[in-house]
Parts: sequence; C-alpha cells; structure tokens
Amino acid sequence: MAEHVALGIDIGGTNTAFGLVTQDGNVVFEDTVATTYYADPQDLVRHIYQSVRQSDYFDQVLGIGIGAPNGNAFTGNIEFAPNLTWKGIVPIASLFETQFHRPALLTNDANAAALGEHLFGCAKDLKDFVTITLGTGLGSGVFINGELIVGHQGIAGEYGHIRVIPEGRLCGCGRHGCLETYVSSTGVVRSIHELDRASRWQSPLIKLNKPTAIDVFKANEDGDLFAQEIIEFTAETLGSALADFAAFSNPQAYVLFGGIAQSGDSFARKVKYYLEKHCLKIYQDNIEIRVSHLHDKNAAVLGTAASLFWKAIKR
Amino acid sequence: MAEHVALGIDIGGTNTAFGLVTQDGNVVFEDTVATTYYADPQDLVRHIYQSVRQSDYFDQVLGIGIGAPNGNAFTGNIEFAPNLTWKGIVPIASLFETQFHRPALLTNDANAAALGEHLFGCAKDLKDFVTITLGTGLGSGVFINGELIVGHQGIAGEYGHIRVIPEGRLCGCGRHGCLETYVSSTGVVRSIHELDRASRWQSPLIKLNKPTAIDVFKANEDGDLFAQEIIEFTAETLGSALADFAAFSNPQAYVLFGGIAQSGDSFARKVKYYLEKHCLKIYQDNIEIRVSHLHDKNAAVLGTAASLFWKAIKR
Repeated sequence: MAEHVALGIDIGGTNTAFGLVTQDGNVVFEDTVATTYYADPQDLVRHIYQSVRQSDYFDQVLGIGIGAPNGNAFTGNIEFAPNLTWKGIVPIASLFETQFHRPALLTNDANAAALGEHLFGCAKDLKDFVTITLGTGLGSGVFINGELIVGHQGIAGEYGHIRVIPEGRLCGCGRHGCLETYVSSTGVVRSIHELDRASRWQSPLIKLNKPTAIDVFKANEDGDLFAQEIIEFTAETLGSALADFAAFSNPQAYVLFGGIAQSGDSFARKVKYYLEKHCLKIYQDNIEIRVSHLHDKNAAVLGTAASLFWKAIKR
Repeated sequence: MAEHVALGIDIGGTNTAFGLVTQDGNVVFEDTVATTYYADPQDLVRHIYQSVRQSDYFDQVLGIGIGAPNGNAFTGNIEFAPNLTWKGIVPIASLFETQFHRPALLTNDANAAALGEHLFGCAKDLKDFVTITLGTGLGSGVFINGELIVGHQGIAGEYGHIRVIPEGRLCGCGRHGCLETYVSSTGVVRSIHELDRASRWQSPLIKLNKPTAIDVFKANEDGDLFAQEIIEFTAETLGSALADFAAFSNPQAYVLFGGIAQSGDSFARKVKYYLEKHCLKIYQDNIEIRVSHLHDKNAAVLGTAASLFWKAIKR
C-alpha cells in the first residue's frame, strides 16, 4: 500500500510554499507561488489544487496542514492579517476542504515553523522552547512541556507585538514600539532610515534606492560601521526582549529562524550576549540560543504538514 | 477514620501564614508568625512545628505544601529571594520534611495563590488564566490548558520582572524599569516620592512621615487629586503591561489578587480600561479582569496545601 502523505502549505505575505510530506518528514513534492498574485484566496486554492494534482502522490494525500499569518487554530480562519492583501476574515481551511475533499487544519505560520522545528529540526530534544521567526515581521511559537501553546482564542505566541520601546516606531497593528518594528527584515530596513548614528553619513547604505536587510548584512561584511551598528542594535533589541520574555515560560532555549537569524552565527552570538546581559539572575546561563538549520521554506512546509499528523494522532 | 489534612504554608517577606486544610478546601486550623523574627529558617520551621502540634488535627497531616518567594518547585529550595532576610539557597522543603517526617512540596508564592484560585476561588471555571498578586512585589502564576506552568528550571511566571519602562526605576533584582517597581505596594509608595505631577504639591501624602499604599487609597477616597493620579498611573502601567503579556499565552482572564487589587472594584475597572486601550485588536473584548474574593492569607494557605493534593493526585 502506498504511503500516506500530508499537504503542507505555508502562506506568506509574498510567497506561498506547499509540499507533500510523508509521516517521516520526507518532502516528496514541493512548489511555490506568489501569494500577492491572487486577489481572491479561492484562486490561490484552485492553483495549488491544480499543481498538486500533477504530482504522482496526489491520491495518497490524507489531509492538509496550513500555516498562515494570523491563522486561528480554532476557527480555521485567517483573521485580519496585516501582511496579506486579503482583508478581514478568510475561511482558508474551509476553502481547502471544499476544493480537496480532505480535512484541513490551520495554525499561524510561526506555530507551524515551531512544530517543524520540534518534529524534524534542532528542537527535537526540547520540551520547553520558543521559536522566533524573523521574516517580514517577527513570529513566535511557544512550546511548554512538549506541547505547542495555542491559548484561549487560538492566538497565543505573538511576541512580535509586545511593545519594547514606549512611543517607538509605528507598527502595522496601529500601536507603537512593537518588537517586530525593530527586529525583522522590515525593521532592519527602517533602521537604515531611522537609526540616529554618526556613522550613518559615511555609509553606502543611505545611497541605495531601495535597500534591503540583505544589503545591511553585506555592508557589514564589507566593514561598514553603520551596518555594524544596525546589526548590533537589532541584536540588542532582540536579546533584551528575550531576556524579559524568559519570565513568562522559563524556556530552555530560543530557536531563531528565518533570513536574518540564519545569516551566519555571529548574529545569534550577539543575541545571546545581550540576553545574558539583560536577563534576571535566576535565568542566567540557563537559556540557549539555537539557530535553525532547516531551510526557511522547508521548515514551514514540514511543520504545517506535520501539525496535521501531530493533531490527528492526538485525537 | 479521621480525614486527612495538608499543612499549607505561605512564607512572605513580612509574615508567614500556615494552616491545615482538608481535601475540600476547609481551613480547620490557621496561624501566623513574623518571618523577619527568624534569622535562621530552621527556627521558623521549629516554631511552626510546635504550633501545629497543638492542633487537634496534627496526627491527620498527610503532607506539606509550601509557597515562598523564589521557591523552586524542582529543587525544593528558596533561591536568592530579594524580599527575604535569608540569603542564598535555603533548602526549605527538606527542613520541613526533616522536622515533620512528612513529604513537603514547594512552589513560589504567586503560583501557590494561582493554585488556590483555580481550586477554590474565582478561576475554578478557567483553563487559561494568569494570576497577578500585588503585594510587596508583583507575582504571577500562569495556567495554560488547566495546568500551572513551572518552566524548564521551575521558575516560570515572573511577570513582575518584565521591564516596562526602559531606564526606569531601580529594581531589587538590579535592573531598571521592572513592572513591580511601579505596580505593587512599594511601587505605589515610590510613586508618592517620584511621580512628577503638579497636584503633588497640594497633596497631604507628601507630608506623611512614612506613607503606605493604603494611605494613597484613603487620600483618593478623600478626593486628593495626586492620590487619584497615582492610582490612575498604577492602573495604566499594569493594564498596558497586561495588554502586551496577552501575546504570550492568550489568556481568558487575569485574576488580580492582593491588597491593592482587592481595595475596591474601581482599580480593576481602570486596569480593564487600559488593557483594552493598549491591547492588540485580535485580543480586544476577549480578556476578562477578575478580582479574587479569597482573603489574601487564606488563598495562599489554601493554594499551597492544595498544590500538595493536586500534585499527589497526579503522581
């Protein structure tokens, strides 16, 4: 009998990755599509259906796991996602169920990554950890005692929207000073424009037309002082916040995930330095910083698909 | 056969309350002693032993539950408690076991209160909630999915030491701006001295020799504007922090406990107002503020004793 697979779908602000994953975590098929191309989510669902139907494994699909920004595990809806073009409430799980005639489960994208990290990545041995996903925004997934926390409404683990600087940068959520306005790829780009440092005026970064976070890391490698100060500021903002957040669940480790975090070990080392510098004495030398070794896209696809199996097994 | 009872002990910075509690939560014996009187914790243990031995229920004691600041559930030790005169590591559970020849379990004081609230108080119907205990400091106990969270080292739920104002007031932990430096009875007293308001100069509070938090609430009732502004500031600092902390565990309710919180409904109403004002849209109108109706001392004694039963039943 042919092995069952799950369809894992990671809906991002820019791209949507999807793949077919076995129960052991082998990705047997994968594809990507531009999310922004689809004004109507139904059209994205149809496109994914057509793509997956081409695969040899289509008949083996047992169910669907979806990760999406502001995905609510309880309702199956994407709710008011500031980073998606679809506004309001989108019944995404229901759309996929109708199209595929398979059960579909939804969780938020950061939780999906956390599940992937726990089942197949560098958090396999951990029961108490928090994943921090650095992309357009900052997502988090909280594991306590080996279980992913979803909370009363299904929307726990939104560390990106904890305010760390009063009256700080304006956030997409309408408030000021949220962690993700500083620590994310968009946050790093804002630092180019907004970080007040003397070194700024000599930096090649301010002459670029549309600089990206990657440009900052490149300029840093080339010895640019301003780039170095932006990275230091970003790492301190994150390390200091993680020091405070330890007082919530007393985790054994934070697992960093996504472009900025995975762009070399030195960022993680700096975050660890500031975490130790700012944390309560009782937590000192007790919290690890780990860097995900899963490829960005894979981890989320694996995680979403895995979450399906994980939940199915538990029910 | 006579019913079993548990000895519940709540060790505070000023007083230690203890009592014998049945499995239904009836307190059949209780007493209090000044913690600060005992330079050696062994002497406190001996005093409690002598007191409890006088009771008719002594032979029915099945075990001991202890709540203490910085109490570590895993080791049974009080570890570096800034609000106790005993310094360093105190093996408190072991001291009680040796004296009583009964098993003793330890948890931190705020967790003990949370257990009491869940078993016998206003959080009976809740699975996801956080208790906020306002005393000398600010303690917290986090319930997720019906379980008290203890974390990797046994010291989760230290919301009082999350920094809410960068470079803010110096805290006993050595850092600046921790929530408990503003929201606690000592925090309220510091506000008398440190809160910069025009109304300050007309207030009777600044003429008092050693004003307390109770004086502030009394002056407020007498119509003092400065007292009113202190309470407003305290409520906003707490409400705004709780708005952010919702992003951790997405709780259904915060349960406020301790002198300040229980000094009338109006403080809780203000906290609720600022919680709604500052929280993420997705959490709006979804988080309750409840005020404990357990008497301060009882809840902790009940909670510590209950934790013994609770844990014993689970093992």
